This record gives sequence, structure tokens and C-alpha cells, in this order.
Amino acid sequence: MRAHRMSPHVLDQAIALEPAGDDLWRGRTHAEYANFIGPYGGVTAAQLLQAVLLHPQRLGELVAFTINFAAAVADGEFHVRARPARTNRSTQHWVVEMLQDDQPVATGTAMTAVRRRTWGATEAEMPQVPPPQDLPREAARGVAWVRHYERRYAEGNVPTEWKGQGGPSSRTRLWLRDAPDRPLDFASLTAMADNFFPRLWLRRATQVPIGTVSMTVYYHADSTLLQATGTDYVLAQAQGQGFRNGYLDQAGQLWNRQGDLLATTHQLMYYKE
Amino acid sequence: MRAHRMSPHVLDQAIALEPAGDDLWRGRTHAEYANFIGPYGGVTAAQLLQAVLLHPQRLGELVAFTINFAAAVADGEFHVRARPARTNRSTQHWVVEMLQDDQPVATGTAMTAVRRRTWGATEAEMPQVPPPQDLPREAARGVAWVRHYERRYAEGNVPTEWKGQGGPSSRTRLWLRDAPDRPLDFASLTAMADNFFPRLWLRRATQVPIGTVSMTVYYHADSTLLQATGTDYVLAQAQGQGFRNGYLDQAGQLWNRQGDLLATTHQLMYYKE
Repeated sequence: MRAHRMSPHVLDQAIALEPAGDDLWRGRTHAEYANFIGPYGGVTAAQLLQAVLLHPQRLGELVAFTINFAAAVADGEFHVRARPARTNRSTQHWVVEMLQDDQPVATGTAMTAVRRRTWGATEAEMPQVPPPQDLPREAARGVAWVRHYERRYAEGNVPTEWKGQGGPSSRTRLWLRDAPDRPLDFASLTAMADNFFPRLWLRRATQVPIGTVSMTVYYHADSTLLQATGTDYVLAQAQGQGFRNGYLDQAGQLWNRQGDLLATTHQLMYYKE
Repeated sequence: MRAHRMSPHVLDQAIALEPAGDDLWRGRTHAEYANFIGPYGGVTAAQLLQAVLLHPQRLGELVAFTINFAAAVADGEFHVRARPARTNRSTQHWVVEMLQDDQPVATGTAMTAVRRRTWGATEAEMPQVPPPQDLPREAARGVAWVRHYERRYAEGNVPTEWKGQGGPSSRTRLWLRDAPDRPLDFASLTAMADNFFPRLWLRRATQVPIGTVSMTVYYHADSTLLQATGTDYVLAQAQGQGFRNGYLDQAGQLWNRQGDLLATTHQLMYYKE
């Protein structure tokens, strides 16, 4: 499918892990996903998850994942430990950890499951927005990782003026895909869940120190639906709920163009001032 | 404050833990919080959390908590392990686990932090509903744990007819407090986050096997705000987002009567058919 490329997609390079022992893998941060300080958290999440996806004892597909960003990830090598803490008949619970110098820099849990066809419904319906081709492609400015997403904002773009007075809504809606394009899978969907710039920027139009401390993703898509979505755009939405004494949370959803809810995601961010 | 009672509140009895070694506590399930099978998940969550709250090395107050219900909790004794995986200057990341017969029955992570006063806003505003005294108190029927909550539904009560045809919305809004009343704290707020009956019941009006597999709570309230809320009602809201192939997720919020957003919560549930 990607035989026309000479080397793996940059995201596949970034999430590549090699076995380093029982339940243990070794990887490296990737300069192409660098953020202001250290790597883009979405790729750190995908790296952590990748150890579960690669694990020979994995049962079923991903349904839930939580990552806590416990410390700044330094550029360079890391280890990921992924332990199947409990394996049931059709579900499996994972405890995961990213380590640098034997210290945890990220902790987390994951759940995988063998899914069966059931009744279903999407209650969080995809909002009506113009199709991606009718919206301008956002120029990739600044840190490296933003170059590796194509973004077309329908609502709630980054403020153009930083005057310390934002609006009453922190809602963002954008069409999103990997750049260069790449067929959607659990790793890339997880990375996309962290793509939203801080909701505080929309409310305050001021750039204070800020960073994600915890993120959870629930996966409604299975691999069949991810494959059907392929390299097409994903509509991503996020909105802040509460901002109080140094921490804010946001709720987000990701749909494919057909309106299938692929994942929901929530995160807690630290902020200063 | 509670000197008029001869014995501790039933929730305090249920979450009582005794030290059992380094990072290790011992507790017991409580018959008064029994669910259909095993204990009410909200109290299991509070028990898991309690080990973090009791830990002598804890830094700051709770800001995030995730629990995964890895296996059915059997009635009787359990152990909780709470390990401070990473301690920073003002934040701390915890890895927690509940064990029975040395096997994990619940896994999770928590984050605590020293909070500072900052700019704040509640974007998820409390919905307008009648005050609790204008809504009927729901009779406590069925399993034991429901007796220990006072519920006054404003919207989305449990279906009265199980005809297999629900409505298009799974949203529930209710006033909630412990019964007998009890000053709000992190443990009781966490337990309340799991109080919602399955969203599937509203959509399908049919009772299929169902259970929470993962729950995350983000705490906007600090202990001062919890104390200020005291024994008053909490307005709790939850709504399903996606229902697909055996798993559904819901998003929820809890406010006090003054409109302070105390916590947001999300959970993933397993369902059959």
C-alpha cells in the first residue's frame, strides 16, 4: 500500500520499538515530532501504546487507554514496559510505563478486548461543518510536530491576536490528517487525540506555561473501521469544561467523514497563572 | 461535626483501610454497598483512591484518577497497593492496584498536585433544573448501594417500561447526595461519579448484561471547595457519546448548588447484544 515510499512514514519511524526483555521495549524520541520542550505528547502516547499493540500476549483490540505525563521526556532513548495485569476471557487490562534513566516519565493503563457485533448508535453526532476542501489548510509554523499534521479549521483556530482577552467558548473543530498522509490506525488516532492546542489560549488569548498531564482515549472504532477510514480526514472537536487553580480539562471527539465516531478523548492540563 | 453519630458513616466504614506493608493496605467489601454482582463500582473506586489519600508520602490534593475494573470483585477482603511512581516539585503520579488472592481486580493511576490560585472559569455551566426540594425523592429499590444515595431526578430517570424502545437521548440530570448525608470529600465525590445507571437503558429500554470497565475523574474542586459544599446536594449529569460493538462511553459533570464545577467524569462500559 505504501510501496511507493522508500522509507517508513515518519510516524512509523517515531513509534518504532525494539524488544528489550520481558514486557519491555526500547525506542527513541524523533526530532520530527519535537514540541516546545521535549516531544509532542501525542507521539509519546502512541509510543507507550505501541508496546501494548506489539505485545505477543495481546488479546483483542484497543478499547481504552490512559496516559499520565509524569515528567518531561528528554530527547533520546526510552524504555516502555507493558504488562498484561489481568487477562479474562475476552478482555485484557494493561499497566504501562515509559522510563528514562530507570525513572518513569509516563504511566498509564490500557484495555484491549475481543469485540462482538452489537446494537450501536452515535449520540455524539458529527457537527455540520464545511468539507475539508472548502477550508484553508493551516500553515505549519513553529515547532516540528505541527508539520506532520494537515489541519483545516472550521471553528476555534489559534488566536491571531494575543491581547489577553479571549472569547467565552473554547470549542475547536477541525479536519485533521497525518502529513504526509497515512492510513489511520490505533497509534495515529491516539496521537491525533492530543493535537488540540491549549483551550486556555481561546479563553484568555495569552500564552501561559501549560501542558497535558493526563489523557484518556476511548476507542469506538475497531481496526476494520480504521481501515475503512484510511487516509481520509478526521473531524476533531475539543472543548474545555472547567478551568480552576492551575488545571483545566477538555472533552473531545473524533469522527470520520461518514460520521462514525472513532474515539472520544479527555485530558487534564496544567497551567500557570 | 458528626459527634451525634455513634458509629462512622457507612461510606467511611466501607472505605476504611488498614496498613498492610509498604505502599499496601487491606480492606473489605461492605454489604451496604452491594450491587447486582459484587460491590458498587463507585465504592471500589473510592477504596482504591483511599490508599492514595492515606499514603504518608502524598503530595498535594487529587486532580486526576483512573480506575479500570479488571475483574469481578469478590465479597470479602482485598488489598490495595498505591505506589508514588514519580514525585515532582508540585505534582505526584500514582500507580494503584486492588488485589484479591494476589490477582489484580482493579488497576489505575492517580495524580495529586499542590494547587495554586489562578484565573478560572466554568465553561460546562450547570444546567437549569428545578431545585432539589421541588423534585421527588426516588425510592431506593433493589440492590443495597442505592439506599445510600438520595436521588432527585430532573431528567432521564430509569425507564418505567422495559419495552425495548428507548428515546434518542441518554442524558440524565439529578440531584444527588449521600444517605445518610455526609460532608463531601474526594472519596464520596469519586463514588458519586459512578452513580449513573447504564446509558444504554435510556436508549434501548432493555436490560442487557452491562458493566463499567474504566472510569476517569478529573477534580476541579480542592478540599476547601468540597468542605464549602458540605452535605448539600450535587447536580450530576451524564450522557452517552458512542455505543458500538459491545462498548459505550459516557461523559459526566458534577456541580454544587452554587454552580461550581466539582468534577468531570468519563467512563467506558461493556454491554452485551
